[in-house]
Amino acid sequence: MISLTQRPEWIDLKAHKETLPPLKEMNNNFTLEHQGIYLDYSKNTITKETLDKLVTLAKACDLEAWREKLFSGERVNNTENRSVLHMALRAPKDADFSIDGKNIMPSIYKTLQRMKTLSDTIRSEGKIKDIVNIGIGGSDLGPHMVCEALKHLADTPRIHFVSNVDGAHINETLKHLQPETTIFLIASKTFVTQETMTNAHTAREWFLNSSSCTEEDIPKHFFALAANKDSVMEFGIPEENMIPFNDWVGGRYSLHSSIGLSICLSIGFENFRALLDGAYAMDKHFRTASLHQNMPIILGLLGIWYRNFWDTNAHAILPYAQNLHRFPAFLQQMDMESNGKSVTRDGNPIDYPTGPIIFGESGTNGQHAFYQLLHQGTSIIPSDFILIKKSYNGNKDHHKKLLANGLAQTDALMNGKTLAEADNAPHRVFEGNRPSNTIVLDELSPFHLGQLIALYEHKVFVQGILWNINSFDQYGVQLGKELAHNILEKGPQTPLHRYVLEDVLKEL
Amino acid sequence: MISLTQRPEWIDLKAHKETLPPLKEMNNNFTLEHQGIYLDYSKNTITKETLDKLVTLAKACDLEAWREKLFSGERVNNTENRSVLHMALRAPKDADFSIDGKNIMPSIYKTLQRMKTLSDTIRSEGKIKDIVNIGIGGSDLGPHMVCEALKHLADTPRIHFVSNVDGAHINETLKHLQPETTIFLIASKTFVTQETMTNAHTAREWFLNSSSCTEEDIPKHFFALAANKDSVMEFGIPEENMIPFNDWVGGRYSLHSSIGLSICLSIGFENFRALLDGAYAMDKHFRTASLHQNMPIILGLLGIWYRNFWDTNAHAILPYAQNLHRFPAFLQQMDMESNGKSVTRDGNPIDYPTGPIIFGESGTNGQHAFYQLLHQGTSIIPSDFILIKKSYNGNKDHHKKLLANGLAQTDALMNGKTLAEADNAPHRVFEGNRPSNTIVLDELSPFHLGQLIALYEHKVFVQGILWNINSFDQYGVQLGKELAHNILEKGPQTPLHRYVLEDVLKEL
Repeated sequence: MISLTQRPEWIDLKAHKETLPPLKEMNNNFTLEHQGIYLDYSKNTITKETLDKLVTLAKACDLEAWREKLFSGERVNNTENRSVLHMALRAPKDADFSIDGKNIMPSIYKTLQRMKTLSDTIRSEGKIKDIVNIGIGGSDLGPHMVCEALKHLADTPRIHFVSNVDGAHINETLKHLQPETTIFLIASKTFVTQETMTNAHTAREWFLNSSSCTEEDIPKHFFALAANKDSVMEFGIPEENMIPFNDWVGGRYSLHSSIGLSICLSIGFENFRALLDGAYAMDKHFRTASLHQNMPIILGLLGIWYRNFWDTNAHAILPYAQNLHRFPAFLQQMDMESNGKSVTRDGNPIDYPTGPIIFGESGTNGQHAFYQLLHQGTSIIPSDFILIKKSYNGNKDHHKKLLANGLAQTDALMNGKTLAEADNAPHRVFEGNRPSNTIVLDELSPFHLGQLIALYEHKVFVQGILWNINSFDQYGVQLGKELAHNILEKGPQTPLHRYVLEDVLKEL
Repeated sequence: MISLTQRPEWIDLKAHKETLPPLKEMNNNFTLEHQGIYLDYSKNTITKETLDKLVTLAKACDLEAWREKLFSGERVNNTENRSVLHMALRAPKDADFSIDGKNIMPSIYKTLQRMKTLSDTIRSEGKIKDIVNIGIGGSDLGPHMVCEALKHLADTPRIHFVSNVDGAHINETLKHLQPETTIFLIASKTFVTQETMTNAHTAREWFLNSSSCTEEDIPKHFFALAANKDSVMEFGIPEENMIPFNDWVGGRYSLHSSIGLSICLSIGFENFRALLDGAYAMDKHFRTASLHQNMPIILGLLGIWYRNFWDTNAHAILPYAQNLHRFPAFLQQMDMESNGKSVTRDGNPIDYPTGPIIFGESGTNGQHAFYQLLHQGTSIIPSDFILIKKSYNGNKDHHKKLLANGLAQTDALMNGKTLAEADNAPHRVFEGNRPSNTIVLDELSPFHLGQLIALYEHKVFVQGILWNINSFDQYGVQLGKELAHNILEKGPQTPLHRYVLEDVLKEL
């Protein structure tokens, strides 16, 4: 297959880039809207022609065919020989999703029904005050982000997330809880994840060490969100407390699966369903809209444009909503774990940059932290500003200031300030010409959050297709696991190992 | 003055770089230790000769003279004509710090005494259950990070941090509090910071709207950490409730000043003093140790090495301690706001990269999120691993696993895995040769945390000196503020402004 950078469409884009005026002279007006999510991508160093050329490149890379392969259940995760069908989790009951000819919708709806019954029961009985979700990576970042994002809709029970194997995380969480009124969700596909199982065993011990609870109470207080029945039962969780998910759901896409049970418990099943509906709306848009009118495709192509033609290597995610404070961390996994790859889908080395660094904090906080570098640093960092039209927690005056700040930042990044405007003080000069997208949600509702999540999922997919990589494996996390296992099994192997571990080995 | 990249020492380093073998063949053993903080910098693509050449470059850039200027109170913040003396805040009473011949130590100790009396009283009386720190940027990130880092030492009162102008932040916080048992710390040097004053007024309103509190109760419940007396009194806070700080304390270094009051209230004054003592120990080390033996200087030079000679543009901060989960966000401000600059100290344009992107999450969480890209992405990202020898919250088994994981990651990044070792599966290959530092604290104590904070402060200073920039201003945050003000005063000015603001303007 022809290498990406040898394609005539690529070479054409490289030449085209040199003909463009600076961003601040462009005066673009590019917008897209779909069911309450709005994208203004005017503040990019592009013309209509650039977009045409990017779309032409996408077509040359067979993006439309790959999109169909994805939705039709082909094993697009080729290194693991798996389909990738988290979209089925949020589709209507009569949708057409199957793997090897088998319709997967009935089992999805069976699981959803179990999640509904369980969360309705626990929420209406009111006996359970605290839920502890024990998971890491996709079993933590997604549900944790959503529960924070929608906490204005939450009531009892309270939700806690424990991920880190650092004992401080589980101990600090348990300190304030009562075993009789606490439920643990142990979230791990394999049910052997080291961090999760270590924390789960500590939770189990804490539960049994209390005066009021015994082994017999475990079925009422421990649930497994998992795929591996044997390990679940070995831990002591009965089969009826296991809510399954399937190997065609990647960890970083799993909040839409049984891993979302904490979401159901926190904000109720109806709100969880609305989140799924929003994601489904974006799935449909992505699958059917023309490339030029397609929000995830436009965002994906803009990412390629900067990463590969402008040599940027980071992308900032700046949600102007305190409740979205975990959204950048969630996207870090979704994007960096998917596209931080150096070999093509066929295993050939890559000679162009792939996935960027994703980072960010909620606005306006970030303005008082790292925006200095966005404005006056020596590297250009394209950014996504995420704004919410409607205030979700009172205080219209606060909300107006919040939005004015977000808007002003995008203007400042683009337009800058000349030496003359800065009264000839060079340290007050802003070069400008720094691109950003503005994504606007009508409100911070489950539906629009679902759209936003799926928007980024598909953006990441689009970029993976153009880069010709498998966005769905994560072999880069294996080696560290193996080496950690070696240290734990065989003891320290280097002077640094010995120095670091001497105290804890003495105490054990 | 000769430009950095024209210096013979710079040109020499560029040539030297080309002669180096890959990191994984180097077998280095470089370590430094100072009072319980340990740095292993063996896993860098350097030889003894590289270090010599970097130190030679530092000397050519007059680093030692600049370090003396800093400590002796010269106005090294030249664009704002200010001294930079946060080091005085943590020095012993008889230390020699003065500005324009005036000894500043007596006023520092007067403020410390007030912080001690106030926090001792509130903590011993036990009437106050909740403290709400309202501040943003340096008035939030530093104290928030420290209170989280040392929460294993905290008791009552509980500490809350409100920073975002998003009304959700203050409203969500106040929801569970009682005015009679709550104290507000309004932290803003100028006392006009938009976010902070908006939140402060909302807090004041909430307080006065309660049935039990009136204007007369305000002096018992509102304190100002500020420099601007008039604005403080105008807000209704009496002078005796204002704890001052000075214009020679930059926001991102202010946790050591009165801005640290929330820390005193959370973990007690003695622990705050120990934090200051740790920072002072690092100050002494930085000021007196030879360049080769100097921890902040070595870290700073390694940063220059990668940023300027290896074209990296990000640096990952990976603390293996859940309580340090806000440390990367804290460092984002400290580093990116300081060194995200494009003109020299004298206002000339810069033709080399300056400050990198700083990002990170606590380990082991990050391993299940973005480490994929650190290991197998196309860009090299130098990383700092921060490990704590002694478990600070029980569970030795958890702690052993935590440390083994951190150590294993540094080994994996450096050594990688060849195609042969990966059974000829290219997607399982790790190129290796990815550098990292390992910083080890004996324990997560106030003293060692103080050392760690000051270590990074001085690292950032070192880099600023070599890059010939003023690390102590932040004009990059001004333009956005001005434009936001314009929108609020004059209303929407673009179609995007109108689209985003239409709902909130209708409702106001």
